Amino acid sequence: MTASATLAELLADLARILPKERFLTEAAQLAPYESDALTAFRARPCAVVLPQTSEEVVEIVRTCARHKVPFTARGSGTSLSGGSLPVEGGVVIGLNRLNRLLRLDPNERIAVVQPGHINLRVSDAAAPYGLYYAPDPSSQPVSTIGGNLAFNSGGAHCLKYGMTSNHVLGAKVVLPTGEVVELGGESLEGLGPDWLGLFVGSEGLMGIALEVTLRLLPKPEKYHTLLAAYDALEKAGDAVAAVVASGLLPGAMEIMDNLAIEAAEAAVHAGYPTAARALLIVELEGEAPQVEAEAEQLSRVIERSGPYEVRVARDAEERMKIWKGRKAAFSAVGRLSPDYIVQDGVVPRSKLGRALAEIERLSQEHGLRVANVFHAGDGNLHPLILYDGKVPGELERGERLAGEILRMCVRLGGTITGEHGVGMEKKEYMPEMFAEADLEAMRRIRRAVDPLELSNRGKMFPGGEAPAVTAHGAHPLEQAGVISRE
Amino acid sequence: MTASATLAELLADLARILPKERFLTEAAQLAPYESDALTAFRARPCAVVLPQTSEEVVEIVRTCARHKVPFTARGSGTSLSGGSLPVEGGVVIGLNRLNRLLRLDPNERIAVVQPGHINLRVSDAAAPYGLYYAPDPSSQPVSTIGGNLAFNSGGAHCLKYGMTSNHVLGAKVVLPTGEVVELGGESLEGLGPDWLGLFVGSEGLMGIALEVTLRLLPKPEKYHTLLAAYDALEKAGDAVAAVVASGLLPGAMEIMDNLAIEAAEAAVHAGYPTAARALLIVELEGEAPQVEAEAEQLSRVIERSGPYEVRVARDAEERMKIWKGRKAAFSAVGRLSPDYIVQDGVVPRSKLGRALAEIERLSQEHGLRVANVFHAGDGNLHPLILYDGKVPGELERGERLAGEILRMCVRLGGTITGEHGVGMEKKEYMPEMFAEADLEAMRRIRRAVDPLELSNRGKMFPGGEAPAVTAHGAHPLEQAGVISRE
Repeated sequence: MTASATLAELLADLARILPKERFLTEAAQLAPYESDALTAFRARPCAVVLPQTSEEVVEIVRTCARHKVPFTARGSGTSLSGGSLPVEGGVVIGLNRLNRLLRLDPNERIAVVQPGHINLRVSDAAAPYGLYYAPDPSSQPVSTIGGNLAFNSGGAHCLKYGMTSNHVLGAKVVLPTGEVVELGGESLEGLGPDWLGLFVGSEGLMGIALEVTLRLLPKPEKYHTLLAAYDALEKAGDAVAAVVASGLLPGAMEIMDNLAIEAAEAAVHAGYPTAARALLIVELEGEAPQVEAEAEQLSRVIERSGPYEVRVARDAEERMKIWKGRKAAFSAVGRLSPDYIVQDGVVPRSKLGRALAEIERLSQEHGLRVANVFHAGDGNLHPLILYDGKVPGELERGERLAGEILRMCVRLGGTITGEHGVGMEKKEYMPEMFAEADLEAMRRIRRAVDPLELSNRGKMFPGGEAPAVTAHGAHPLEQAGVISRE
Repeated sequence: MTASATLAELLADLARILPKERFLTEAAQLAPYESDALTAFRARPCAVVLPQTSEEVVEIVRTCARHKVPFTARGSGTSLSGGSLPVEGGVVIGLNRLNRLLRLDPNERIAVVQPGHINLRVSDAAAPYGLYYAPDPSSQPVSTIGGNLAFNSGGAHCLKYGMTSNHVLGAKVVLPTGEVVELGGESLEGLGPDWLGLFVGSEGLMGIALEVTLRLLPKPEKYHTLLAAYDALEKAGDAVAAVVASGLLPGAMEIMDNLAIEAAEAAVHAGYPTAARALLIVELEGEAPQVEAEAEQLSRVIERSGPYEVRVARDAEERMKIWKGRKAAFSAVGRLSPDYIVQDGVVPRSKLGRALAEIERLSQEHGLRVANVFHAGDGNLHPLILYDGKVPGELERGERLAGEILRMCVRLGGTITGEHGVGMEKKEYMPEMFAEADLEAMRRIRRAVDPLELSNRGKMFPGGEAPAVTAHGAHPLEQAGVISRE
């Protein structure tokens, strides 16, 4: 049987599951699904399907498995590592219509949602009960819980509360073979190995979540948000080390350097001291008496760290303004440069100062500006590499610089990604972190779950198992003779 | 080649790795390794090996893999689920000699230890830096970190701090195939799926840890330990619900019923009010001002719950006395009854009252006394079923009662084990919790790591993959003609 015959049969089978308006095969329909937030990559699927029920998702996966055609689940497409990039010629399963809150139990403090449910909507629904969902990626107003699970999303407040994996209690999952399994439960005390943990962070390689049980936390009674301005980046880094050494565990500790401040200020007028070489945001949260006691201690620690200005948010509005600047910093950098690469790496907290000095050196060496915005409390760096794609060679230089920064993270004992994932972008860096035996063990486990490597094929693992990243070629349906273009 | 020839070759190969004094094959030498803390089971290994280095462990595993002979890693043998029971005729790898602290970094707050390192020794070593290792199973003065990892051990304080899995950052592991891999790292922000989480809690089925990187926490500045006595068990249960609803997150919340109080009191003279139908221990911990503020709130909540007596530990000595009674309760029950079964199950916190009433009903129905000691904060029940093994039929009745309690836990939405593991004891209950598709997916992943099911074969998964639990038969070395007894 020829490839085109297989493809035609797959499409015919999918058409039996889904009505026409939720089964997209025309070029114009497919275009929005050809890339995600990591715009450097692009690949064209053979079809996009938009299921409305779990049963449809299961049927679609089984159909793909039967025809041995790879598929990629997609939420809002906010992946910064190309994680929701289609497999060239594969099927994209868009999950935005599976967006219901299925259950909210304030006594057990759990919410059960479908994978297309938006992160921030969980907290909205929990708010009347004084509860919220802790993981807060910057994308939280748009990104979905399914995507958050796949990439084990973090956020500014994961310093205190941990990543998505610390807040997912259970999931009903369709494995790449089409089997449906229940992982975890409603309790944090699982049984045996953490099967759920194998799914969370698996970047779509272990199947698709159909229902997710999330842990809700009581909303902090009080916040104390402090902004300290420094005349040197090192001082801000040292202040973070001093806060940690003092025994305080803030909800968040964020640093922005001069370039990031400038960008954020231009974009959202947060009122940041724009002359600062570095800003440190520290937020305490919890019961009021505890926060008040900690706030005093924090003041003393920060004072000793030599800031030239310290501000404390007096009310919720001032707090939101401080955070608005921080959360806008990524996209705001677009105002300083036509193009930029968002990098994501981790170094041990004690090596922050050295890492920043190294980034500065690499920035000069490659002749490209780098803005730094990062979760300082857990050593998660987010260097933003500024370049102009229209200048020949600048993109390549930017990518080389990004690679050097990642290698430095590994050298200092850190990792190549803190929260954006490996996806398409970083898979070739995996051997920098893992020995071949480690990677082979991982691959073997992956194949135990997905023998044909159908689910989001080509992501995370280095090497040739994947259809390579592509420039636009002929549409696979054209190649297969199923459609022809005017 | 006959089985005996294979066995003789295996033993000859092992003898090349280890000197005679660390390679045990005589019946008298093997006897102490034939069971663990779950004394109802017993199985005889063909040999016990006592490696002193990681390299020896790797060589032993490779030798077993080459000869296709199953093996079981063993620490202090404190498993309450038969998890460290040998595979009949297999090799026991005793890890107590790999007990070194390899590194302690107070800045990064990590400790790197060998698998045979004793849990409590980690905190001892960290104490001079104001740090400690949080997971506190009752066995912590004797149990090893390797065993804690295998069974994802909890403890009274896991309510606030989580189980072992929340405190392990990385592990160097020899897989059952003999490959050596590194899982996790020194950061809580892992990359991709939680491979380490697949190892933690795997009950020895995924290989053997060679080095473990643990997270250390700052020692709480202050404890506030409260003991409340009630005239009814339900009141204590309701008090727990009220504390949770108030937004407080105590370090521990423990309940003991009348029978458990009586036993503990007889054993350690903790000064408990022995007339109480139930005792509730609540412990707050953290920075002093926070604990003081929370203590006031706690007093109000507890007062409203209707205790007839409330005591607060005035100093460290009084605190230790309260905990001594609680931690001794298990073994103290031996004073009330010649034999007892320690059960371990979980129910949703909100269903504690119903579960306790149900246990009471089942206790009467089966004509056996049940003492209840449990981690109330997280719904982890520890009913102790009292029986007399010399009375015909009592053990069987006790086992039936234990089974009914587990089924009730599952029915109420809980699990068949909170922290003791499935091991040998509960594997036949797995189908009560998991659908066949779930179990098959787990088995597939296990086989990806251990294709021959050599590592701790026969544990956790139900059914025929295992040599069954045995009464004593002929020693396998006799069967193989390798040794003969007088």
